[in-house]
Amino acid sequence: MSVYTSVGEAELAAWLSRYSIGQLKSLKGIAAGITNTNYFVDTTHGRYVLTLFEVLRLDELPYYLELMSHLARHGVACPAPIADSTDGYASMLAGKPACLVTCLTGAEVSAPSAAQCFAVGEMLAAMHEAGNTFPRRMANPRGPAWWSATAAGLYAEMDALDAASLREEVAFQDRYRFAHLPTGVVHADLFRDNVLFDGDRVAGFIDFYYACNDVLAYDVAIALNDWARRDDGAIDDALARALLAGYQSLRRFSDDEKAAWPVLLRAAGLRFWTSRLLDLYRPQAGEMTYTKDPKVFQRVVEDHRARRDFWL
Amino acid sequence: MSVYTSVGEAELAAWLSRYSIGQLKSLKGIAAGITNTNYFVDTTHGRYVLTLFEVLRLDELPYYLELMSHLARHGVACPAPIADSTDGYASMLAGKPACLVTCLTGAEVSAPSAAQCFAVGEMLAAMHEAGNTFPRRMANPRGPAWWSATAAGLYAEMDALDAASLREEVAFQDRYRFAHLPTGVVHADLFRDNVLFDGDRVAGFIDFYYACNDVLAYDVAIALNDWARRDDGAIDDALARALLAGYQSLRRFSDDEKAAWPVLLRAAGLRFWTSRLLDLYRPQAGEMTYTKDPKVFQRVVEDHRARRDFWL
Repeated sequence: MSVYTSVGEAELAAWLSRYSIGQLKSLKGIAAGITNTNYFVDTTHGRYVLTLFEVLRLDELPYYLELMSHLARHGVACPAPIADSTDGYASMLAGKPACLVTCLTGAEVSAPSAAQCFAVGEMLAAMHEAGNTFPRRMANPRGPAWWSATAAGLYAEMDALDAASLREEVAFQDRYRFAHLPTGVVHADLFRDNVLFDGDRVAGFIDFYYACNDVLAYDVAIALNDWARRDDGAIDDALARALLAGYQSLRRFSDDEKAAWPVLLRAAGLRFWTSRLLDLYRPQAGEMTYTKDPKVFQRVVEDHRARRDFWL
Repeated sequence: MSVYTSVGEAELAAWLSRYSIGQLKSLKGIAAGITNTNYFVDTTHGRYVLTLFEVLRLDELPYYLELMSHLARHGVACPAPIADSTDGYASMLAGKPACLVTCLTGAEVSAPSAAQCFAVGEMLAAMHEAGNTFPRRMANPRGPAWWSATAAGLYAEMDALDAASLREEVAFQDRYRFAHLPTGVVHADLFRDNVLFDGDRVAGFIDFYYACNDVLAYDVAIALNDWARRDDGAIDDALARALLAGYQSLRRFSDDEKAAWPVLLRAAGLRFWTSRLLDLYRPQAGEMTYTKDPKVFQRVVEDHRARRDFWL
């Protein structure tokens, strides 16, 4: 259940008068999404998704919504925000910043095939290409400075061996700088629950609210650490190769990117290991978090440390 | 048959590298469209429509393509142009200006129901609303100055009675000026063959290449003269009322618009009577025109002259 903010039909119908999408027929809460409230909104013109932002402020939304609009205009499969009579994408509804986006078909895939991993990699490369002309910039708020500071605040409470492993990884990453690698718009959270599939075709990337400007190959590493990860926690070689092959069918890694790739895979693991530890040790009051296991990404990082073949 | 310009797969695949829409799977000529060449283009990401412009120049396209993009962003059902790696919507292909747009579902309706006329009227009002924030402007090249000059060049060759009726109409319209009426972006050619339906729902307006800035109610008159016209050439009262009810469900006519409405209906008829006469008497070399009968709109105008109830 993830409808934190209730919206009534009358209130919504009044708010919809700022849009050119027809008359409200019905709305229905969507039981997905951890941070935001989502509704299906059916009008005489079709189905849309209404999002009420529980954490992001109205002035923080333009980067994300204009990015989604930009990517959709470029043919990247993602929801397209609907502009209102002020030509804006977001305004207040029920006390929360809110927006409407197009409703994609397709469904999540929990156990992806190699063909689906290939398609995700290919669409991610398409997204990276299309992002080249996006004019806005946003630094990654969950980069090395963030994970170093966050980890430092948690070591004392952690199991000693886990803390040592985390310290080792933070120290390892501190030895690398990636300023020379190609950067651009990254999704930064392209996990299985953020991609809709229609068969083996990507019907859409969703949940762009971690998107930012960062190293492109790091985004591939984030995706690979989830898409190629089996239920037992190990990375599946065939799925990893498929995702990389899909990505590189459109955008080949440079020599610099290939050299940095093993470190980026560990960095991508560290970022989620750290955020899951934070969720575990510092749960946010009032935020519904079904805490995900940090051990999953501890294992990803430790497996990458021992790995010799990185599928390139 | 309306593929005037042939495009090969290799040539198209090379051109598609400027887009982020996946790899070319197939292309297929579309046997519709009088002025342009259209293809279905299937890629690994989905289906798109490729248009090669046979008459419009590359520098004339931004108004139309940015308008379609603007309207699509606002939720108006219409094809959305796909932006390329330069963030532009059009470039040269096979010697012609070309663009890609999203492929809509739905089909044309040759004998619309009242429900479909209502839906067309409602979507036209939504388009007029959404056009309010479109920043570009284009004067209507087929306004009163155009039809007066065009008609003047044809009277001598026309049947005397028809010419007298045309002169009467041009003189009648010369007595009216509509500078006081609400203006905005108009489709200006919203005939039955330019709307796709999915049941009673408008799946999309297409062919925006006559769009311009003009009197909004004139656009409604153009649509009504086609959508409510029966096979016998008479305007059907129920269909006319339905289209107007749909339009006014979203955007009510002002008193000024109501007063001008009977004249606008005749103006809308005169515009197509004149263009069809032009196509008949001055066929363009090299342009495939299956000439449409000017008499259809002569009758529309003459019927409106005699009409007393204009469905408002």
